[in-house]
Amino acid sequence: MSSETRYADWIAVDWGTTHLRAWAMQGDVARAEASSDDGMGTLDRDGFEPALLRLIEPWLGQGRMPILACGMVGARQGWHEAPYVSVPTTPGTLTPVQAPTTDPRLHLMIVPGLSQSEPADVMRGEETQIAGFLAAQPGFDGVLCLPGTHAKWVRISAEEAVSFQTAMTGEMFHLLAEKSVLRHSIGTEGEDPKAFTEAVSDTISRPEKLTQRLFALRAENVLKNLSLATARARLSGYLIGAELAATKPYWLGQEVAIAGSPKLAAAYASALQTQGVQPHVFDAGPLTRLGLARIHASLTESA
Amino acid sequence: MSSETRYADWIAVDWGTTHLRAWAMQGDVARAEASSDDGMGTLDRDGFEPALLRLIEPWLGQGRMPILACGMVGARQGWHEAPYVSVPTTPGTLTPVQAPTTDPRLHLMIVPGLSQSEPADVMRGEETQIAGFLAAQPGFDGVLCLPGTHAKWVRISAEEAVSFQTAMTGEMFHLLAEKSVLRHSIGTEGEDPKAFTEAVSDTISRPEKLTQRLFALRAENVLKNLSLATARARLSGYLIGAELAATKPYWLGQEVAIAGSPKLAAAYASALQTQGVQPHVFDAGPLTRLGLARIHASLTESA
Repeated sequence: MSSETRYADWIAVDWGTTHLRAWAMQGDVARAEASSDDGMGTLDRDGFEPALLRLIEPWLGQGRMPILACGMVGARQGWHEAPYVSVPTTPGTLTPVQAPTTDPRLHLMIVPGLSQSEPADVMRGEETQIAGFLAAQPGFDGVLCLPGTHAKWVRISAEEAVSFQTAMTGEMFHLLAEKSVLRHSIGTEGEDPKAFTEAVSDTISRPEKLTQRLFALRAENVLKNLSLATARARLSGYLIGAELAATKPYWLGQEVAIAGSPKLAAAYASALQTQGVQPHVFDAGPLTRLGLARIHASLTESA
Repeated sequence: MSSETRYADWIAVDWGTTHLRAWAMQGDVARAEASSDDGMGTLDRDGFEPALLRLIEPWLGQGRMPILACGMVGARQGWHEAPYVSVPTTPGTLTPVQAPTTDPRLHLMIVPGLSQSEPADVMRGEETQIAGFLAAQPGFDGVLCLPGTHAKWVRISAEEAVSFQTAMTGEMFHLLAEKSVLRHSIGTEGEDPKAFTEAVSDTISRPEKLTQRLFALRAENVLKNLSLATARARLSGYLIGAELAATKPYWLGQEVAIAGSPKLAAAYASALQTQGVQPHVFDAGPLTRLGLARIHASLTESA
């Protein structure tokens, strides 16, 4: 490290398929934040470094700046592949992979994703959220649920991610609500908490009826004027119920934490409450930054 | 009826969301056939009559031509609404609804769809396939499966459709295979019959695992190079297995007939065979025309 006084010691980067976020860090404190919609999925290979520089150039000094990134930036089709690390493993001490750069001011390291052999499963980006969660909740022993496009359920013990399971719940919801025949019957907003929890319970008790229940949303709209808001709540309840049916070995009788966007995390919490589980709810917003800071600190400690 | 010698006595029309087909009929014999991609979903209201005339004008004479149509042409957003008829009902003797026309040569009648109050369900177009199936298989007593975008299972007894159930299996397959994260892991062709039947059996015995199995296709592709053809067979098996789990009260211990496109009908047959059911398999190709002829004949008989 040079003795030059710089605006940032290092830069934290969260780079997914649809978004790019960066923080100018001093230790574990973020001094500035910037973001753009230059997701991995929208860029050509030649566009990666310019997209990053558009956000972080103001924070660079004369020397080489350590940059720690996570997410799809480390996928095979990303900037540079950071091969999956198999569970069980400790997310907070994952070893990042150095990625090639053109600009000599950039020293880019990428956090690897996690894999599981049986049942086959992968994550990329969530490992850093788990590290952040454990930085905020040290010693947590139980199951962490990260709801979203591809929801993750993770067994955690002694700072390790022991095993995990993915459910495509968020993606299924958007495909069915926006791209299927149900799109005319599903509102874009509105809530019906009672319809939601009933749909959750119905699906957990009779998961085999899922495919029939879905089309009934359309039929009830046509025949009985089912409201768009109630249909939306029921679709969400059916799909979250199906996820809870599939992940029952994860949450049954366990200490459960949910970290997501506040609205979605609250929906999962009320779904779990129908099954007698009282989860702890956290806002996932800061977790990626906290996780990158945790992994960065472990690098410095071990250096 | 005029005594004029005409090319056709009447015209049969199958008008769905994505296609338009017409047959020039003499009695129950088709003398000519025409089709276009002027589906209801692609046309404005002003475009319906011109689209029909583009196909059938060569078959019109001087007088008024009876035209019997089925499908989305009778939906609320179609040419003219033909309100649903509730089951139980006899598809072969449904009473069509007359629709307004501008061209005086057209006498358009539309076959109503079927509805069921509890569980709520609807069909539009398949009622005519059922009428056609019963014209070809009079006296059939059992369950008819019509696989497709929205698969229908219909209990049939004494020429009546007694009850029915819809599963969105075909639509789910296309959304997941083409629009979801699985699209990179699912082939566009290729077969693996063993993987298919194993996936069917797995899902029928553990339907609650569906949402986990789906993402595992992606993970096994990334971690274990699961072939695109095997992944396609498994996705199909999982979804058809989920449909069979939902429709078990329909097929268990029943006489089952499947009428679909030959390849899809064969897949459903092999799926049912894993459960000890030996279905009769029919090509659905001619059923709509046969059904329109059956309904047209019943109008003439009752006139």
